[in-house]
Amino acid sequence: MDLVEPQNLVKTQVAVFDEISLESGKRLSPLQIAYETYGDLNADKTNAVLVCHALSGSANAAFWHKGARKPGWWDMYIGPGKAIDTNKYFVVCSNVIGGCNGSSGPASINPKTNHPYGLEFPVITINDMVNAQEFLMKHLGIKRWLCVIGGSMGGMQALSWAFKKSELCYGCIALATTMRHTAQQIAFNAVGRQAIMRDPAWNRGSYYETDVYPYQGLAVARMIGHITYLSDEAMNIKFARRLREKEKYGYDFSIDFEIESYLRHQGDSFVQRFDANAYLYLTKAIDYFDLEGEISNDIIRGIMTKFLLVSFSSDWLYPPHQVEYIARLLEKEKRDVSYCCISSDYGHDAFLIYNEKQSRILSGFLNRLYGEI
Amino acid sequence: MDLVEPQNLVKTQVAVFDEISLESGKRLSPLQIAYETYGDLNADKTNAVLVCHALSGSANAAFWHKGARKPGWWDMYIGPGKAIDTNKYFVVCSNVIGGCNGSSGPASINPKTNHPYGLEFPVITINDMVNAQEFLMKHLGIKRWLCVIGGSMGGMQALSWAFKKSELCYGCIALATTMRHTAQQIAFNAVGRQAIMRDPAWNRGSYYETDVYPYQGLAVARMIGHITYLSDEAMNIKFARRLREKEKYGYDFSIDFEIESYLRHQGDSFVQRFDANAYLYLTKAIDYFDLEGEISNDIIRGIMTKFLLVSFSSDWLYPPHQVEYIARLLEKEKRDVSYCCISSDYGHDAFLIYNEKQSRILSGFLNRLYGEI
Repeated sequence: MDLVEPQNLVKTQVAVFDEISLESGKRLSPLQIAYETYGDLNADKTNAVLVCHALSGSANAAFWHKGARKPGWWDMYIGPGKAIDTNKYFVVCSNVIGGCNGSSGPASINPKTNHPYGLEFPVITINDMVNAQEFLMKHLGIKRWLCVIGGSMGGMQALSWAFKKSELCYGCIALATTMRHTAQQIAFNAVGRQAIMRDPAWNRGSYYETDVYPYQGLAVARMIGHITYLSDEAMNIKFARRLREKEKYGYDFSIDFEIESYLRHQGDSFVQRFDANAYLYLTKAIDYFDLEGEISNDIIRGIMTKFLLVSFSSDWLYPPHQVEYIARLLEKEKRDVSYCCISSDYGHDAFLIYNEKQSRILSGFLNRLYGEI
Repeated sequence: MDLVEPQNLVKTQVAVFDEISLESGKRLSPLQIAYETYGDLNADKTNAVLVCHALSGSANAAFWHKGARKPGWWDMYIGPGKAIDTNKYFVVCSNVIGGCNGSSGPASINPKTNHPYGLEFPVITINDMVNAQEFLMKHLGIKRWLCVIGGSMGGMQALSWAFKKSELCYGCIALATTMRHTAQQIAFNAVGRQAIMRDPAWNRGSYYETDVYPYQGLAVARMIGHITYLSDEAMNIKFARRLREKEKYGYDFSIDFEIESYLRHQGDSFVQRFDANAYLYLTKAIDYFDLEGEISNDIIRGIMTKFLLVSFSSDWLYPPHQVEYIARLLEKEKRDVSYCCISSDYGHDAFLIYNEKQSRILSGFLNRLYGEI
């Protein structure tokens, strides 16, 4: 990309640790964490901000990888002078464990067999992801995060930090997320998993060393997901009932509608960059997440973290009432919490899109935290 | 079933016609229609009621087939003394063309090849289904329906009758339906079709004479559908986050949650009774349906049919505002229309479940029509 200035280039780094104990009771050894950092840690080590990614994200939250066709997934909010200002903050983003973008996951080599783990990789949870991030935190010499920020599955990690490791987390910004999945939210993930596991190429998770790959199942899973990421409004604005390169119905089973073309493209491009088993592991971690089941009013009263909770009006995957519920729970125990529902037509994916209001409330809240410490 | 009285037994009948012209411009020859009738046609032939089934329904709308484990799909509303009272009305229900329960569909034998059609079967539309029903109507000697009734895809047929063949249709009851799909509604169907078409066993629709069948793809399609048929409320009442036969998470990819077990059961049992190609044809017909695109205010002003339109509060597949929209369109042109939104937690499937209020408004509206003619 000619337009990219060299100073915008970043690389993913890797840290390796001996072993981590997981919620399941199992251990993962070694533990590899892929991460990126932007900006500089100040002398007091008080300006570190952890950004947590969602299901399909990676450690590349901002700036450009050499030769990449687009910048990191939250580049619109992270950078010099941006909402999460890298001139002020030391920003860290790590790939979650169980994923497929550099941190230990089902496609990693199992040292016991010298072959990819597949389903031998232990099932991980949101709390396990957070514990792995704590390894990285210590590795980077950070004593406390100024703020942990994330949306969707990233929001679950941010909430886990704030509710369970409050002393390590001065502020928390959670967007478009929930404390736990309802049955319907589990259902969407469960059907996505079924689409993968019913693809014969999945081969019970052992496809890495074969010449097949569960492309079709993963593509279907991604298409299901995409319907939940957009809103009916967003789809109607973007596609309505418009036909794809035809004037009238084709009366066959090729593509008729633009929305069909869009979904197929989303599915087919996703399989180029994501591991099918990782999709199983991460959706399972999301379904297992049940922060409400883990906490009590006593625990809430002990939380010193300051919260900014954000929902989006047209998000029907994690609807505003689920975020508002967290705010009320904290408010009832007189915790420091701000809640904002941003009006948007973009559905769940709104948090990944540039929005002036979102930018202002992110920067405003971070400025406030930074002024306090 | 010992409890079934012999007088409750019914059989599906078959009528065969030479040929039907389809909206696509193609012809289907011969045209076979499977149907059932309940009650008796009166001497004036004024008491005939057509019941139209939804995606996975059949001609068996009421009473029992010999040896069946359950009665017809709307038995709670059709029968002696029930809302659609077979002591008063001559009730007809036929299997839609393009389906797989006795009427011509992709699994039928193509007379040109003596093999099942597969994708050689012409793509059909909701209007084609209605035109086929008109063949049956004449065959049965009926001059005008007292009422055409249907929910979901059945509601689309009922609307097509009323808007396009008003002179043949004195009354119309359409439940939980729409005049046309939005992009999101197309999206859910499109992903279901993709799940089937990406199953290698689908074999471009030619699986009838092989030893494989696209079970897995069809099961995934049905699971996606089922999420849209239920509401978040219904799922939370029925399943919440309850685990299936375990006290704590399994930390594996077997079934953890009750909702997962329910969905898998729905998917796996559906494939025993439904043809994968028929699923493609019927969902395509639904996506193509665009009554709003076909009509004008002039046409609406010419409609003499009397309407009862019904929505269900928790139906998010065909939300109340879509049904209300049809009511307003008719009201604006001073047509005879009643609209009712029934409060229910059951989501889209509410119309298939017994509800005292639904029963009363169906019988009340039919009584009114019957008293008028």
